[in-house]
Amino acid sequence: MSRIDGRKADEMRRVKITRNYIKYAEGSVLIEVGDTRVICTASIEDKVPPFLKGTGRGWITAEYGMLPRSTHERSQRESSKGRIGGRTHEIQRLIGRALRSVVDLEALGERTIWLDCDVIQADGGTRTASITGSFIALVDALNVLTTQEGQGGGEQSKSRAPGTAGARSRRLKLPVKDFVAATSVGILDGQEILDLCFEEDSKADVDMNIVLTGRGRLVEIQGTAEGAPFTRAELDRLIRLGKKGVEELIEIQRASLGELASKIGR
Amino acid sequence: MSRIDGRKADEMRRVKITRNYIKYAEGSVLIEVGDTRVICTASIEDKVPPFLKGTGRGWITAEYGMLPRSTHERSQRESSKGRIGGRTHEIQRLIGRALRSVVDLEALGERTIWLDCDVIQADGGTRTASITGSFIALVDALNVLTTQEGQGGGEQSKSRAPGTAGARSRRLKLPVKDFVAATSVGILDGQEILDLCFEEDSKADVDMNIVLTGRGRLVEIQGTAEGAPFTRAELDRLIRLGKKGVEELIEIQRASLGELASKIGR
Amino acid sequence: MSRIDGRKADEMRRVKITRNYIKYAEGSVLIEVGDTRVICTASIEDKVPPFLKGTGRGWITAEYGMLPRSTHERSQRESSKGRIGGRTHEIQRLIGRALRSVVDLEALGERTIWLDCDVIQADGGTRTASITGSFIALVDALNVLTTQEGQGGGEQSKSRAPGTAGARSRRLKLPVKDFVAATSVGILDGQEILDLCFEEDSKADVDMNIVLTGRGRLVEIQGTAEGAPFTRAELDRLIRLGKKGVEELIEIQRASLGELASKIGR
Amino acid sequence: MSRIDGRKADEMRRVKITRNYIKYAEGSVLIEVGDTRVICTASIEDKVPPFLKGTGRGWITAEYGMLPRSTHERSQRESSKGRIGGRTHEIQRLIGRALRSVVDLEALGERTIWLDCDVIQADGGTRTASITGSFIALVDALNVLTTQEGQGGGEQSKSRAPGTAGARSRRLKLPVKDFVAATSVGILDGQEILDLCFEEDSKADVDMNIVLTGRGRLVEIQGTAEGAPFTRAELDRLIRLGKKGVEELIEIQRASLGELASKIGR
Amino acid sequence: MSRIDGRKADEMRRVKITRNYIKYAEGSVLIEVGDTRVICTASIEDKVPPFLKGTGRGWITAEYGMLPRSTHERSQRESSKGRIGGRTHEIQRLIGRALRSVVDLEALGERTIWLDCDVIQADGGTRTASITGSFIALVDALNVLTTQEGQGGGEQSKSRAPGTAGARSRRLKLPVKDFVAATSVGILDGQEILDLCFEEDSKADVDMNIVLTGRGRLVEIQGTAEGAPFTRAELDRLIRLGKKGVEELIEIQRASLGELASKIGR
Amino acid sequence: MSRIDGRKADEMRRVKITRNYIKYAEGSVLIEVGDTRVICTASIEDKVPPFLKGTGRGWITAEYGMLPRSTHERSQRESSKGRIGGRTHEIQRLIGRALRSVVDLEALGERTIWLDCDVIQADGGTRTASITGSFIALVDALNVLTTQEGQGGGEQSKSRAPGTAGARSRRLKLPVKDFVAATSVGILDGQEILDLCFEEDSKADVDMNIVLTGRGRLVEIQGTAEGAPFTRAELDRLIRLGKKGVEELIEIQRASLGELASKIGR
Repeated sequence: MSRIDGRKADEMRRVKITRNYIKYAEGSVLIEVGDTRVICTASIEDKVPPFLKGTGRGWITAEYGMLPRSTHERSQRESSKGRIGGRTHEIQRLIGRALRSVVDLEALGERTIWLDCDVIQADGGTRTASITGSFIALVDALNVLTTQEGQGGGEQSKSRAPGTAGARSRRLKLPVKDFVAATSVGILDGQEILDLCFEEDSKADVDMNIVLTGRGRLVEIQGTAEGAPFTRAELDRLIRLGKKGVEELIEIQRASLGELASKIGR
Repeated sequence: MSRIDGRKADEMRRVKITRNYIKYAEGSVLIEVGDTRVICTASIEDKVPPFLKGTGRGWITAEYGMLPRSTHERSQRESSKGRIGGRTHEIQRLIGRALRSVVDLEALGERTIWLDCDVIQADGGTRTASITGSFIALVDALNVLTTQEGQGGGEQSKSRAPGTAGARSRRLKLPVKDFVAATSVGILDGQEILDLCFEEDSKADVDMNIVLTGRGRLVEIQGTAEGAPFTRAELDRLIRLGKKGVEELIEIQRASLGELASKIGR
Repeated sequence: MSRIDGRKADEMRRVKITRNYIKYAEGSVLIEVGDTRVICTASIEDKVPPFLKGTGRGWITAEYGMLPRSTHERSQRESSKGRIGGRTHEIQRLIGRALRSVVDLEALGERTIWLDCDVIQADGGTRTASITGSFIALVDALNVLTTQEGQGGGEQSKSRAPGTAGARSRRLKLPVKDFVAATSVGILDGQEILDLCFEEDSKADVDMNIVLTGRGRLVEIQGTAEGAPFTRAELDRLIRLGKKGVEELIEIQRASLGELASKIGR
Repeated sequence: MSRIDGRKADEMRRVKITRNYIKYAEGSVLIEVGDTRVICTASIEDKVPPFLKGTGRGWITAEYGMLPRSTHERSQRESSKGRIGGRTHEIQRLIGRALRSVVDLEALGERTIWLDCDVIQADGGTRTASITGSFIALVDALNVLTTQEGQGGGEQSKSRAPGTAGARSRRLKLPVKDFVAATSVGILDGQEILDLCFEEDSKADVDMNIVLTGRGRLVEIQGTAEGAPFTRAELDRLIRLGKKGVEELIEIQRASLGELASKIGR
Repeated sequence: MSRIDGRKADEMRRVKITRNYIKYAEGSVLIEVGDTRVICTASIEDKVPPFLKGTGRGWITAEYGMLPRSTHERSQRESSKGRIGGRTHEIQRLIGRALRSVVDLEALGERTIWLDCDVIQADGGTRTASITGSFIALVDALNVLTTQEGQGGGEQSKSRAPGTAGARSRRLKLPVKDFVAATSVGILDGQEILDLCFEEDSKADVDMNIVLTGRGRLVEIQGTAEGAPFTRAELDRLIRLGKKGVEELIEIQRASLGELASKIGR
Repeated sequence: MSRIDGRKADEMRRVKITRNYIKYAEGSVLIEVGDTRVICTASIEDKVPPFLKGTGRGWITAEYGMLPRSTHERSQRESSKGRIGGRTHEIQRLIGRALRSVVDLEALGERTIWLDCDVIQADGGTRTASITGSFIALVDALNVLTTQEGQGGGEQSKSRAPGTAGARSRRLKLPVKDFVAATSVGILDGQEILDLCFEEDSKADVDMNIVLTGRGRLVEIQGTAEGAPFTRAELDRLIRLGKKGVEELIEIQRASLGELASKIGR
């Protein structure tokens, strides 16, 4: 049985990652997964949230937004509403947790990396595309940070100097322990499918997001029965499908990062 | 290896459900899971959100709150902050989805059931206790509704009459398709454990919430690596552990509902 | 003429105070006045609002909330509305003033006691029940504080050490000058009645809250003609009735506190 | 013993009422009580809050504000803070209740009168001045309304036509049952004093607001011990003092209203 | 004297307009003015604000936002702050007024066109780029509308049918009276310059935005002395410079619209 | 052709400035322009916004509000809405910029002057009246400041002492470089007119606000075509008309300030 857009059940949409998409950000990409397009930027701030002050550890946090007309029908701006909705909160927390899982926060030092994921066009899978794209922006930003410090000088380096500087110079190691990427899987008309587009997602009986590392370990799994509850056997097949998808995404991340990819997990 | 509170790895805390805890609500319980205590009420409203108007279908939605001193340190009221936090949003959405999965929303008609889960004392697992307790409050409220309608009269019945009445009288069937309950599992110091208390939860490497029906099907699974990512084998063992816990909870629900239990899934 | 619930005009409802209701709070009670049930907790914070900084004086402040289904009809959460209503503000201010009137704020030192009054079930008189119950929670919290300091040590003592420590150890005196309790009185169908339940309250022509100390002095009197204005003679009779009620409440407080009662006003 | 500003204990400050202060409002006054200056306007709206719809009864509601520099130190605008404070809420509710007590809301029909009290300069007693001044603005607005209707026609009359028209023309009776005015009394340095200015108010041990009708009946009494609780004997003397003050204020209201005064209570 | 980026005083930056940038919107462009990049979408809504209901006239309104990292330093999201800042409000109002000035709102009928301008990268002149880009998006959206109606049928046409349909079919005329575009001019180091980039803008003594129609008439002129006030002679030279810039922009708009350009002002 | 209120096209309304209108403020005026009445106060705060900390420079900022019944129809309070509207934001920013343009912010030192403009009665031109009136309040407040410092002592002087004291005593120079005032001009029925009242403003095709210094230089010019765009020739005539108006306003300011006027621009 063929899918709405002609894909096979286990086929991803075309993925394209454009690095350095925004000139001011330390890291930035435009990630396109089919018709879904998300701008991900990584910004470095030389302080941490109150609960980490004085611990020497860093933090990674995410914010997510959608342009009003990224969707079929125009949706109201959250800034106009004066409050952020539940769905946005949930997605922001998911992205933050996913990226923190592969970063050595001790090595980062007392800094925060802000990941901003802004959806320009939404056709399903915006939260998983945000995770996959943010990873590249994050690596680029951390590379800027470690390169500056490795060189140990320059005016720009000073402005990014570690909060508790000193013995910390020449830290050339990228504080990234592994790759991380995410995709969605689901059950539609009794068939398990990979990487749902919006139309598929809105009709699916089961919807699952899966976040995996380069070594194939689980960072997050969120499966929801929108209609009928599902069985253990179905769960197992969905996880297998998701794993296939994430492995392909990590290959695309690796190609996009080029030489930088070799510094990950060292 | 024994746990903080002396339990075995696969042992639940003591669970107690007090029905009809609040005299005004159509359904209400106090659920106690160890030192966690949550008041769950179910309130019937004779209208639905805009997206369901005219569809003949009903809705179930949840709100969640914590008393300021339900926690070790007093936390600020969300009403004083003027906004609901991300964690609260996430939990509210989870509870609503879980309960909707076992209700026949067509049979409910154009009504909303509001589930309010207010945590009086928090010692871990408040969201899963909310799901388990809300199910009882929901069944009681739906029973009030169907009993009134079955009798087809009385002043009180009128005030709860269906929005689009008429052929709808004498509907005695409880629109509940199955039981639903939830628990948490996690990995702490390399050991998989069931029903984490607060202290365990705050130290766990992996934290998973699992929502299952009476027939053992999955409604929701949310697993998160707080520290190190986890393997497929670990996931499988966690699901098995969670299943054991939920089966015990459903037995407790069944006992608490007494005769009413037999009307579920009919 | 007998009342809605069969009481005599000058008869209080049954009052029950359960101490140490919440395990984390320094002081906590569940107070029940007829079908009205309020959880009152007292939390100690080692700082004061800006206007008291550096004065050496402490502060006592109250917050009040109602669970959505504590009332006949479910009411919207104030956290969902994003703002606290006028009635809530008024009640919070009243509770805070009432409790401050019997505490030696100098002796308290630069600390704030937060009193949280959360209504679980509302059947009239929630604000006066909050005052009466908070007094017990407050005394328990202040007792924890002075006992720790009297002992002059221990790890726990340190975390609660006075802001401007030093000569302050061994302060065993409880900084409570007198008892304080409150009740409502009103005029319904031309009859002055004590301790109005919800149904009486909603029909009364005059509604008055009265807060008195153990020595019978007035802390607060708030009388309002909802319908027809009232005379001086009626006011006098209402005050007499309120005094009777508060005297009974203070006896119940005294019994509940047991041995601790003897430290008040010393 | 003479007071801060040389007055005797039972002496009011100079009161001045300027009618028709704002050209657009149906009723408006500038009331000056010593250095306290408040603009009160009454605006007619041809609808009522939801809870009165279809009852045929009207409503009177008040809003209160202070210009940022009406006080010694500039205070932040409540519009900038994004929320109305507890004190403002309390005052608004008090003013509304006080004015409703002397209006025949049935005769008013399904209309709302908005009383806006804006403090231009604050020197104590702003809430009681708001009540006293609003009464004049309210009478003027109700006079506009009844005069138009009595004439039974004209274009302007139409725009103010009653929601549920018909037999309603020629209603010439002013729906005002009595005068109402308010003042404050207090105990400072052991002496009972009338009409406290800001400096007195900030030092007083007891502070009481008293709202009385033209016939000397009580509409509202709010007494608070800021410092030491007070006795019944003190309360009695304070009420007597307040009554003297309100009687003087009602004479000033009567003079200000001129011929219109004779229509009140008819 | 040459400028920061080597341009002559009266030289615009390179402008590029990409039409149909977002697949869901009725009109959408990516406009690039040097390094400034803005996504402009036009969305059609089949209703009008309350003040236009029943008038038969349409409305055009704009919303403006900046991605957090569109700027040198990351700025906080307005949705997180919970309020829209003064600058955003001012810009939104300016864009709306500018576009309304060239549309025949009577011919539009009771519809609202929402213009969303989201800044992806900011290097000065974002508000004027928003106006220039929105014009193209607006023309495309109005063309969709008039083409559908001209054809008088089809399912899509129905969903966009006029609120008060009937005699309105076959309206093929584009309700656009003229072109409109905008640029900024300013005085920096005593020199009048055209189309300021961010660095110039932040140092300029005078900053002026100028909005002109295709016929060279003024729609809006906003000149501000950030430092020293300016003379009439300087104002005249600035207007001349702005006019040159807008004329070039309108040529670019004309080229971008191709054949559609000929329908404007007909 | 004569105007609505009988004025000639180039005739201002009657202007009256009452100094020291509010007893607490360092500077305050009631400005009346025809039926428009605005209270302007200037308040001194001994700190600056974060972006100026440590620069030695001061700041001037404005807030603007309208009483609910300052307009024909009562408008909702912005404090009740919980947010400040776009129009208010725009006006506040305009007033602040206008006043900053004539003050020597270096000489002011690290202080903020808050200008509060509250409209008591609105009949058009409230923002320009706010600028014209605020200038007087500002001069009076700065005079208080420099006089105190010139005298170099006294208790009051200390409370207003400069943030970075020392060589700062005896600074008698008023840090005001020039006068500033504002008026509106517009085109109505093809005629250019000066100082529009509300009725003219609501019908005008072009509306322009113009802010000029005592030396006739432009501080701000904001011209908007509400209906048909306007020509360069019309713009020139409007500027000429506005200049005439502002010159008259500055004469009135000069007369109002009396002797103090001679200290401006020294």
